[in-house]
Amino acid sequence: MLSSSDSDRLKIVLVSTRNALNIGAAARAMSNFGFSRLRVVNPYEVAFREARSAVGAASVLQDAEEYRSLAEAVGDCTLVVGTTAARKRELQHPLRPLPEGARLIRNRIRSSRVALLFGSEKRGLSNEDLSHCHRLMRIPTREEHGSMNLGQAVAVCLYEIARENARTRPQDRIAPAKTRDLETITQRLLEALWASGYFKSKSTASAEAKIRRLVRRLNIAASDAEVWMGILRQILWKMRGSFE
Amino acid sequence: MLSSSDSDRLKIVLVSTRNALNIGAAARAMSNFGFSRLRVVNPYEVAFREARSAVGAASVLQDAEEYRSLAEAVGDCTLVVGTTAARKRELQHPLRPLPEGARLIRNRIRSSRVALLFGSEKRGLSNEDLSHCHRLMRIPTREEHGSMNLGQAVAVCLYEIARENARTRPQDRIAPAKTRDLETITQRLLEALWASGYFKSKSTASAEAKIRRLVRRLNIAASDAEVWMGILRQILWKMRGSFE
Repeated sequence: MLSSSDSDRLKIVLVSTRNALNIGAAARAMSNFGFSRLRVVNPYEVAFREARSAVGAASVLQDAEEYRSLAEAVGDCTLVVGTTAARKRELQHPLRPLPEGARLIRNRIRSSRVALLFGSEKRGLSNEDLSHCHRLMRIPTREEHGSMNLGQAVAVCLYEIARENARTRPQDRIAPAKTRDLETITQRLLEALWASGYFKSKSTASAEAKIRRLVRRLNIAASDAEVWMGILRQILWKMRGSFE
Repeated sequence: MLSSSDSDRLKIVLVSTRNALNIGAAARAMSNFGFSRLRVVNPYEVAFREARSAVGAASVLQDAEEYRSLAEAVGDCTLVVGTTAARKRELQHPLRPLPEGARLIRNRIRSSRVALLFGSEKRGLSNEDLSHCHRLMRIPTREEHGSMNLGQAVAVCLYEIARENARTRPQDRIAPAKTRDLETITQRLLEALWASGYFKSKSTASAEAKIRRLVRRLNIAASDAEVWMGILRQILWKMRGSFE
């Protein structure tokens, strides 16, 4: 059984949503299944305002937080889960079926914050968005017609997360690092890679996304994040010295 | 596992639906989860026509059958299941939670036709409608906000009915890196740390053990080990360059 503070630790993050009705529908499903923390990243402004001012808009919408970037929106979370309908797309992430992904989320929100991401109506989550995720979760739709309506996708995911009333398995003993720290590690590692010539040019977005994913796959513990940041700082300090 | 003829035996019955978008959303969810038999009873005509003529309307909608009365719409079924968000309403029916109701439906459609009923947006199923049902099924929404959007309710129910199809394929279990590779990573990292001055003296066994444990805690995937070895080799190459 999820407590209300467990539920509050789950942040529903809508990325680049275009349609006011969909934002409203997502908020309604959240309220139905007992989740209240909505975050919107770079929404189509008109739609967000419209959804917010709709008659009877749930308190979920009134309290929604708006972010400029996905990195900021998930910065305080220890687990970032992206949703997708894709099967074949080249995803460099473990792709879990919804029941399994939901179990992971349920376990994690007992102790720390989790972000559950939904992409835009047209294209879902971009590769850049996906690079911020630790895991991807797939709603088991039909191969021939996989793409779901956003509000329905949110409803189905939250239903599944709230579905199991029991099964407390506090087996997630190691506290995972905050995403903010993972991003610091990513940036320092990238700097070292540019300095070393591992990547030829400094600014390819795909290189950055690749390294971000690589770091996310490591499952760095909270208690180790500091050590890794220190290690990279020291290595960078030495490498920079070599330029002078 | 539901076969397609099993799925075809489930008739989704929308009773007195008012809104074209909701009819469309119900049809879309059906298509997503592999159900194709839609029946509408006494719909608001304009809405039904509008939904049917929408660009890209699923074949589900094209093939929808229209009935004047609920009795006719469920006449060929052996089990009629009504959906409700109500908890306290005086229901002279066994009220089952969705997972249990869905199991009943899954079993029955192996051999005969089942109707799953959704009421109008405003009032749900009427008492008259309910009198046609063998069973009622409740989506486990929150007491304070039980009433779901129609399209979302359809999506959640069909997801649950199809859910068993989605059994975890253990294909996305991540193969962990070989210890041999972890040790190579450990040694290269140690070399970088000595070179950078992170550790003062070159040979403390406790430092080495510390880094070894740190690397083991990362859960590096077999498919990533090569990348990490390459990254460290390149960083070391650059750092050594600085001594010359």
